[in-house]
Amino acid sequence: MCQVSDWERVVEFHGHVCLGLAMGYRAALAALRVLEADPAADEELVAIVENDACGVDALQVLTGCTFGKGNLIFRDWGKPVYTIGRRDNGKAVRVVMKDTSWAVDEEFAALRRKVFGGEGTPEDRRRLQARQLEVAERILNAPEEDVCTVQETTISLPPRARIYPSVTCACCGERVMEPRARIEEGKTLCIPCSERHRGR
Amino acid sequence: MCQVSDWERVVEFHGHVCLGLAMGYRAALAALRVLEADPAADEELVAIVENDACGVDALQVLTGCTFGKGNLIFRDWGKPVYTIGRRDNGKAVRVVMKDTSWAVDEEFAALRRKVFGGEGTPEDRRRLQARQLEVAERILNAPEEDVCTVQETTISLPPRARIYPSVTCACCGERVMEPRARIEEGKTLCIPCSERHRGR
Repeated sequence: MCQVSDWERVVEFHGHVCLGLAMGYRAALAALRVLEADPAADEELVAIVENDACGVDALQVLTGCTFGKGNLIFRDWGKPVYTIGRRDNGKAVRVVMKDTSWAVDEEFAALRRKVFGGEGTPEDRRRLQARQLEVAERILNAPEEDVCTVQETTISLPPRARIYPSVTCACCGERVMEPRARIEEGKTLCIPCSERHRGR
Repeated sequence: MCQVSDWERVVEFHGHVCLGLAMGYRAALAALRVLEADPAADEELVAIVENDACGVDALQVLTGCTFGKGNLIFRDWGKPVYTIGRRDNGKAVRVVMKDTSWAVDEEFAALRRKVFGGEGTPEDRRRLQARQLEVAERILNAPEEDVCTVQETTISLPPRARIYPSVTCACCGERVMEPRARIEEGKTLCIPCSERHRGR
């Protein structure tokens, strides 16, 4: 069996090393440890993520809570907070990431603000990427209390993912699952055709 | 270097083999082929997915368009359609998945309706999973024209992902990124505290 470390799998999925990915890696491992849980092959775990930044990719790989399985719930709250629960025993943890400015110097912070502020040149992006590894390693090697807090909590688990029958859009002829079909003047339409039809 | 096939990487990420995952695998490979693109290490590609079902996990692994990188755009339209574009030359393709009832027999279809309709017993889930591999292999080995259509298209690419400064919620004391902070009676709050405060 091929030996690939958890961190290597996370980096391969995300495509590059960065500070946020390392944070998500620490969050996921801390959550699994406290939950005494294995990654979810199906929907055994549910993750509620309060942001959609890099760290969530580490969470997807390590917890098995993925966008495509329906056990990754996104709350667009812009908070570095991840709540992960087990369906079998209802146990859940809330992981709150700490401010990690201690891990970066001013040059890195300034580059990061520039690049992710939308003003970075391709050269700035290269310089930032070249420094991400050293910063990520500080996060990976730091004591957990410098990176995040993990509190046990309770969550109401969402129902398991469902599939629905498909119907055909009377306008574009493409299939759409029933709950997303719209009715316009007796015709069954998909949402984009319905919105075009309404001139939106 | 460890040799793991693309399909093995997709299955490891998703956690199990299923029909939808095989469909997403075919969609992703078809898109990359027509775009003549490599998987996105950063945001070189952008994917607009019109559903959040299993297939999107294959798309995340193979195209590098991931939830955490900001280059996976979700339109909740319930359609088996994926649009993938290149930032460098603006080329884009729209992949529309075909009805694959040809790949399943009535027993499988009935089990799938039952399990994903929310009425399956754990035993039904086991029986369904036991049959997913054979069905997935039919999809993996089918001629592309039986699985999907790939049309070149044009899309307006979203801006690259950004990061923002954080502020501290005056209620819970947790950090929130500026664009998601809310102001209540002069106080800066995160969205969940703001909603509690408003009694929602």
